[in-house]
Amino acid sequence: MIRVHHLNNSRSQRVLWLLEELGLPYEIVAYARDPKTMLAPDALKRVHPLGKSPLIEDDGRVLAETGLIVDYLVSRYGPHLAPDPSAELHWRYRYWLHYAEGSAMPPLLLKLILNRLGWLGRPARPFVERQLTTHLDYQEAELSADPWFAGPEFTAADVMMSFPLEIAVSRAGLNASRPNLWAFLERIHARPAYRRALEKGGAYAFAR
Amino acid sequence: MIRVHHLNNSRSQRVLWLLEELGLPYEIVAYARDPKTMLAPDALKRVHPLGKSPLIEDDGRVLAETGLIVDYLVSRYGPHLAPDPSAELHWRYRYWLHYAEGSAMPPLLLKLILNRLGWLGRPARPFVERQLTTHLDYQEAELSADPWFAGPEFTAADVMMSFPLEIAVSRAGLNASRPNLWAFLERIHARPAYRRALEKGGAYAFAR
Repeated sequence: MIRVHHLNNSRSQRVLWLLEELGLPYEIVAYARDPKTMLAPDALKRVHPLGKSPLIEDDGRVLAETGLIVDYLVSRYGPHLAPDPSAELHWRYRYWLHYAEGSAMPPLLLKLILNRLGWLGRPARPFVERQLTTHLDYQEAELSADPWFAGPEFTAADVMMSFPLEIAVSRAGLNASRPNLWAFLERIHARPAYRRALEKGGAYAFAR
Repeated sequence: MIRVHHLNNSRSQRVLWLLEELGLPYEIVAYARDPKTMLAPDALKRVHPLGKSPLIEDDGRVLAETGLIVDYLVSRYGPHLAPDPSAELHWRYRYWLHYAEGSAMPPLLLKLILNRLGWLGRPARPFVERQLTTHLDYQEAELSADPWFAGPEFTAADVMMSFPLEIAVSRAGLNASRPNLWAFLERIHARPAYRRALEKGGAYAFAR
């Protein structure tokens, strides 16, 4: 059975949701952030040297990196959650698996660190705000033709994109003024698999 | 013919190197960073709304995200630069395509921003330094069994990992005290394809 090493209020919520969409049995090993530093506890380092979540174990493999985990689970257990590998949309699908962590998350991480620095971080703020606006405008435009990131059908690219968008609500001012993204969040939060994952995962501050 | 939108001193140097390893014909459209802000010029936004490099055009497609570009080029033109998709090592290979930008680069980006903040950034520095040490120690250990990131053979995972390691030399103090990583850098820099890409790409401050 697949084992998910899951941290509260983290990107690993997506992995639970994907497993619910796939209808696969899985086991959660729950970790709680250190209440002072908000970092993952050292116990995670016993599973993988980076000590980050999500991590999954399957068939004796330990897999890290959300984009890779999503790619792995879909390739192995749920090809219906990706466009067919021979289809042009498949590259669009794979693009979002990289974009979510490789490009959407870094400015959100910068914003978090600058927020913690308070007024000391002020000189770097305009740069980061411009980046956040560019990315949100881009994501909004990308959903103008189709309701889902990889085309007319829901895919695991939407699971992957959920976390940067959920974070952007509290951290980058994402709201209904970007109607495509707002509707996307409402649609994913209404999915039964999303709700089930939320019940099983425990604390997750970024869904409504 | 493949067209590469290439920015000096940037992550797109990897794409030129990979194309040289693959022996594919390609055309470079060169962009220069703004000398004041060090950011990419607005001209790149005419190719892709995010205005970042690398971008490639191939067969009417515009592709962004280095991890995706590497995945695409290897799948399409150079499967010999990845472990066979049926092999266990294939997941290890794909892992690095995600890790390089999704996990290795963010602390290096944080360090850059904190450096620019000068003394104002001091309170956040210990956190970032710990992250950088964790990642470099991890990468060093990952090269202890095999000389290449995805096992005994050179693959495009090594191309992908080159940039965070090259950046780490100037930005995170990577040096010969981590002998596996140091030898890795020396090995890749000696490859004829790497040298050819360096000649064609113009300014690249991170190779020796």
